[in-house]
Amino acid sequence: MSISPAPLSETPAGASVEDRVYNFSAGPAVLPLSVLERAREELLCMPGVGASILEISHRSKAFLEIIETAEANLRKLLGISDDYAVLFLQGGSRLQFSMVPMNLLGADQSADYMVTGSWGKKALEEAAKVGKTRKVYDAKETNYDRLPEPFCADGGTMDLDPQAAYLHYTSNETIQGVQFSAEPETQGVPLVCDASSEFLYKPLDIDKYGLIYACAQKNAGPAGVTIVVVRKDLAERADPNLGVYLNFNTHIASGSMDNTPPTFAIYINKLVTDWLLSEVGGLEAMHSRNAEKAKLLYDVLDQNAEFYQGHARPDCRSLMNVTFRLPSDELTTKFDAEAKQNGMTDLKGHRSVGGIRASIYNAMPLAGVETLRDFMVDFAKKNG
Amino acid sequence: MSISPAPLSETPAGASVEDRVYNFSAGPAVLPLSVLERAREELLCMPGVGASILEISHRSKAFLEIIETAEANLRKLLGISDDYAVLFLQGGSRLQFSMVPMNLLGADQSADYMVTGSWGKKALEEAAKVGKTRKVYDAKETNYDRLPEPFCADGGTMDLDPQAAYLHYTSNETIQGVQFSAEPETQGVPLVCDASSEFLYKPLDIDKYGLIYACAQKNAGPAGVTIVVVRKDLAERADPNLGVYLNFNTHIASGSMDNTPPTFAIYINKLVTDWLLSEVGGLEAMHSRNAEKAKLLYDVLDQNAEFYQGHARPDCRSLMNVTFRLPSDELTTKFDAEAKQNGMTDLKGHRSVGGIRASIYNAMPLAGVETLRDFMVDFAKKNG
Repeated sequence: MSISPAPLSETPAGASVEDRVYNFSAGPAVLPLSVLERAREELLCMPGVGASILEISHRSKAFLEIIETAEANLRKLLGISDDYAVLFLQGGSRLQFSMVPMNLLGADQSADYMVTGSWGKKALEEAAKVGKTRKVYDAKETNYDRLPEPFCADGGTMDLDPQAAYLHYTSNETIQGVQFSAEPETQGVPLVCDASSEFLYKPLDIDKYGLIYACAQKNAGPAGVTIVVVRKDLAERADPNLGVYLNFNTHIASGSMDNTPPTFAIYINKLVTDWLLSEVGGLEAMHSRNAEKAKLLYDVLDQNAEFYQGHARPDCRSLMNVTFRLPSDELTTKFDAEAKQNGMTDLKGHRSVGGIRASIYNAMPLAGVETLRDFMVDFAKKNG
Repeated sequence: MSISPAPLSETPAGASVEDRVYNFSAGPAVLPLSVLERAREELLCMPGVGASILEISHRSKAFLEIIETAEANLRKLLGISDDYAVLFLQGGSRLQFSMVPMNLLGADQSADYMVTGSWGKKALEEAAKVGKTRKVYDAKETNYDRLPEPFCADGGTMDLDPQAAYLHYTSNETIQGVQFSAEPETQGVPLVCDASSEFLYKPLDIDKYGLIYACAQKNAGPAGVTIVVVRKDLAERADPNLGVYLNFNTHIASGSMDNTPPTFAIYINKLVTDWLLSEVGGLEAMHSRNAEKAKLLYDVLDQNAEFYQGHARPDCRSLMNVTFRLPSDELTTKFDAEAKQNGMTDLKGHRSVGGIRASIYNAMPLAGVETLRDFMVDFAKKNG
């Protein structure tokens, strides 16, 4: 009987939109407000369905429309051809660390891994449990502040195996804040990418990839669904005796429906990709917004280099995770506390890097980054 | 500025609580209305947090309180001691079909599997990919309408291996509608139970189990989280070289937090178990309600035996999934269509059994079952 969506002034006490902070969490992370409003509006009862998205069968017409739209949106945003399957899986990137070699690394093969941060290191550790691996790059000595050449001057080189089953890399390292600006050259070796913390931040040349995986809780939705884009002919390498959930071909053949998929997380992914298409205007526009937001913060680092020390080398700075240190631990704690008082949360850096990390994914509004920028300038002035 | 929860009359058009049907889906399935209302109320912004449950870090104080309460609720409801870990995993029962033998079935051991329906059959198929298995019971010849003795008269016997690594059974077969009224005797062999479609429907004697697993989307929450209760000493059997996500010990050591857990699904599980404790009054009370609901429908079958033919043998009828056939396919189609016109959905049986299946999990209100009961009596009268 009322209009759609419900007036936000009618949001229950203690839960109003005015209470929302700027949430710089590295993930799960901020979502577009319009996505949350839509989900809220439909949570008791989806129009025409008679039940909540949380309650309906994954075989129902309503859910099939959702998962098909989510896939179509991803194909449209990224230009994914029919040579590739788009899968909605569970278990996070962590399970992909095992599934990728279980499916793509034959017993007589070896896989190449680049280690450009914490997640690349974990991916390699897990693959080494499954089969033969080679570490073709490791920036450990400089605490993962750089990428190999040509992505980073003096970054060092990779030692690639032209016979490798695949080359695995982490396109954005969430903890260190280093990001590839383009795909590494592989000379024909299939490229496998953990894109978890950047997926959907810009357009991709999908044909350069053999497989891309990304947990959703950065740019693509809530925790609980992992998107895998895989070239179908590569997936055919899998041993048919793999467990059904662990075999990409199970999910390819069934459209991610061999077992009950994480229906709500896929629904939110559908709303997020709807937002990217209809409100943002696609991934070129998203990339421009992201570049603009990141520049605001990196400019502060560059203009206050005596106070803020960026972790990543300038030529491989991430547009998603801006990492920097302050002159002392005391000032870092003070920065985090005062930011919180000013409505900005989750800015503490990961312990392996220290300092501050501002995660500014797709859904972080420009106003949030401007607020942080102003705070950073002011904080340096007062404490520098 | 308004009260909590928001008046339901203010729910947006097309999504009001009055539009809700009685949803007899086998899963994902109906949730308690108060759970949906609470989730809706907090979806834009959790009180005191400044962000949605969908956006907050799994390491945040707010989420840690949620996962700890969810675990404490389960321990309280089921009387789970510290000898057992309670895990919140992803991948559904399907991944457990692989993980259970990967963790508990040593290379020199064999595991016993009871096949009492479609899910037990799949569990065995997956285990056979991992190691040595024995099928100790199979009711295929009678299309899985019964359980072994003593649970079902003339059900046949099991052929147990006293040296088995474990005995696996499916406590409720969702498709066939057969359910164990108690745990099978194992003579010391660890008991492993797929309780997916009955978990939390009644109290359990947990000490009889080595491991219980259940995907949440029947009685415990939405799709996307699978609860595993495992005796810690059994989990120690696992090969340390298993992939981290695939090893129960990873999750035991980290409190299901080695990687990002499915935060929203766990939040809903917390609300559902809050509901069981505070609104229902525990699992004894839940069991009484479930028995009362199921009796309403089975009484109709028994009193109209010339019209409705129950699939399960009377002594092993499920309190969760009531399966029956009508005199013809035409009448089955008519039944389903007229039920829908009367606000009752998802009643079509699985193709392997045919007929009708009414899933009446914990959250299905008595009024929904009474409505179906009245409809069934009326339909038999008019069409018999």
